[in-house]
Amino acid sequence: MSVRLAIDAMGGDHGLTVTVPAALSFLQSHPDAHLLLVGRPDEVEAALQQQLSRVQGGPAPALSARIRVVPASEVIRMDDNPVQALRNRRDSSMRIAIEQVKAGEADACVSAGNTGALMAISRFVLKMLPGIDRPAIATQLPTQNGGFTTMLDLGANVDCEPAHLLQFAVMGSALASVLDGKERPTVGLLNIGEELIKGNDVVKEAARLIRETPLNFVGNVEGNDVYGGKSDVVVCDGFVGNVALKTSEGVAQMIGSFLRQELSRNWLTRLGALCAMPALKRFRQRVDHRRYNGACLIGLRGIVLKSHGSADVLAFEAALRRAYDAARNGLLRRIEGAMAAAAAAAPPPAAGAAAEGSTA
Amino acid sequence: MSVRLAIDAMGGDHGLTVTVPAALSFLQSHPDAHLLLVGRPDEVEAALQQQLSRVQGGPAPALSARIRVVPASEVIRMDDNPVQALRNRRDSSMRIAIEQVKAGEADACVSAGNTGALMAISRFVLKMLPGIDRPAIATQLPTQNGGFTTMLDLGANVDCEPAHLLQFAVMGSALASVLDGKERPTVGLLNIGEELIKGNDVVKEAARLIRETPLNFVGNVEGNDVYGGKSDVVVCDGFVGNVALKTSEGVAQMIGSFLRQELSRNWLTRLGALCAMPALKRFRQRVDHRRYNGACLIGLRGIVLKSHGSADVLAFEAALRRAYDAARNGLLRRIEGAMAAAAAAAPPPAAGAAAEGSTA
Repeated sequence: MSVRLAIDAMGGDHGLTVTVPAALSFLQSHPDAHLLLVGRPDEVEAALQQQLSRVQGGPAPALSARIRVVPASEVIRMDDNPVQALRNRRDSSMRIAIEQVKAGEADACVSAGNTGALMAISRFVLKMLPGIDRPAIATQLPTQNGGFTTMLDLGANVDCEPAHLLQFAVMGSALASVLDGKERPTVGLLNIGEELIKGNDVVKEAARLIRETPLNFVGNVEGNDVYGGKSDVVVCDGFVGNVALKTSEGVAQMIGSFLRQELSRNWLTRLGALCAMPALKRFRQRVDHRRYNGACLIGLRGIVLKSHGSADVLAFEAALRRAYDAARNGLLRRIEGAMAAAAAAAPPPAAGAAAEGSTA
Repeated sequence: MSVRLAIDAMGGDHGLTVTVPAALSFLQSHPDAHLLLVGRPDEVEAALQQQLSRVQGGPAPALSARIRVVPASEVIRMDDNPVQALRNRRDSSMRIAIEQVKAGEADACVSAGNTGALMAISRFVLKMLPGIDRPAIATQLPTQNGGFTTMLDLGANVDCEPAHLLQFAVMGSALASVLDGKERPTVGLLNIGEELIKGNDVVKEAARLIRETPLNFVGNVEGNDVYGGKSDVVVCDGFVGNVALKTSEGVAQMIGSFLRQELSRNWLTRLGALCAMPALKRFRQRVDHRRYNGACLIGLRGIVLKSHGSADVLAFEAALRRAYDAARNGLLRRIEGAMAAAAAAAPPPAAGAAAEGSTA
């Protein structure tokens, strides 16, 4: 099966200078992939020709055969109002890229553009999957043991009811299974320390609901478990998830800055840093946030990946890979199947049936 | 003015083996401090004599003159139920230490014991300051620019109304001013990314309330601003704060573990690490969480500092220093003054008066 991705080629802080090189690099490592580059045709073609000439002598002809330029005359800017963008920019590269998914021309869409607009337009164009009230933003974070934690929601839903957290659990489990190849990923519910009153009412009720599904639910996890890798999936409301994600980005930045400062303090420390360079380089690669770029707008009748707006070529390619994996491994079918199983298990027709469901 | 601290000498994972050496080290660097060591007298005296003999020849006699052992026959364990501890352990080292503050025998109390019990007993014994509904947990976190962010609440209050966040703002501002010596610390309200719907209803209303006070309010801050140092104080509800704090601990652990792994990968990287040792050592000191130990249970009619249960001597001494600074600089008077000023400014008797208050 070949996988077709629609790329909002004009989106993000850097537009074509990032999306086109990333697209070509991605195609080289994914021989069964086809790409639709959506944007102003002249500009996309020019960027494409320029980049293709660089890979000349290599597999360039084969690459261009797997690329199609899809015209879109408008561009949604990073500071555009999402509602305005939805109403007024009907021929934007973002919207046309999403419509490729709707029309069955693409299996997934990737954009580094305005998050609010991407959310609004995706929801309007694609609609929600059955049983899902709202889309969530999910991403994969690295863990101490070398694996990944799939975390959601990261900011799409600031006020969640228990049923929403249940839906996040189902969707997160499906996403972890298609991205990591785990049949029954463990699911944890983000909560606070044991020594204090355990969580608020929403979280307590959500735990009860999730426990009734066939999901591999491991109960509460705490903030340090996100990067500790205690569960494959961590479920939380969008306010908490967004704060947790951004706080951890802040810590990582601070630690990186402290390390750089100490290594460059004087000629002696700089010499030391030079000696330790191979190890420091590998370390830098492991904590490089660009490798973890690409958040899934999940719950829609179509796969939409959001890249960081400031993504460079390496980061945008990481988002393309995630979209490819999600599409190739049938994310939507997984979610639909899991939702159906959860609905069958809860509300329970009888106490026995629910108990059976939770251990299935 | 001399400062008197009551120490729950039996508390924490390590009890006397940590609290007594930390107490002596603290006394050496704080010549105007006096300590009450609360615990089982025989055990405290034995630990004290053993430690004092180590600093013999130094200023040991002067030290012991500034120490008084206060007897308490019971110990609250780390896994004791807070309500049971409050009801049944009336002669515990934790409770007697708190009662020293109530009785005016000590200016502050420090414990590494059970957080829930410390919260319950402190609240019962000391009561709340006027205008404060609930105690909060506040701590100081390091920032990228070498300063500190005072953050609260970190887990005492999982469901907050706007008025609670307002009280946290007032208390946090007072705490930052006594610990950092800043006359009008900047106060930020933790919220989520600008590109998404900005926060939930509670946060929006809290922003309105805080804006009416004379506090130096800078509006919303995001997760990455906590360690970025955008504001001196970051206000949030206890669920969000607890998750943010623990997530950032998790990231720091993961990064540290990755760095160790890469530096010890083979003999070449180990040699490199040896060369870079001076810089790596300074780096490790800067990110050493023990230096930032000591959370304030704030809002009570008395100063109570909570040390991490697992604190070692260095960490426990950091908590003692924070208690000392808070007491010496009149934390309670500060909070009372700030609460009175906030109450005078809001609810506003007239729009003009409120506007005046907000720029005072």
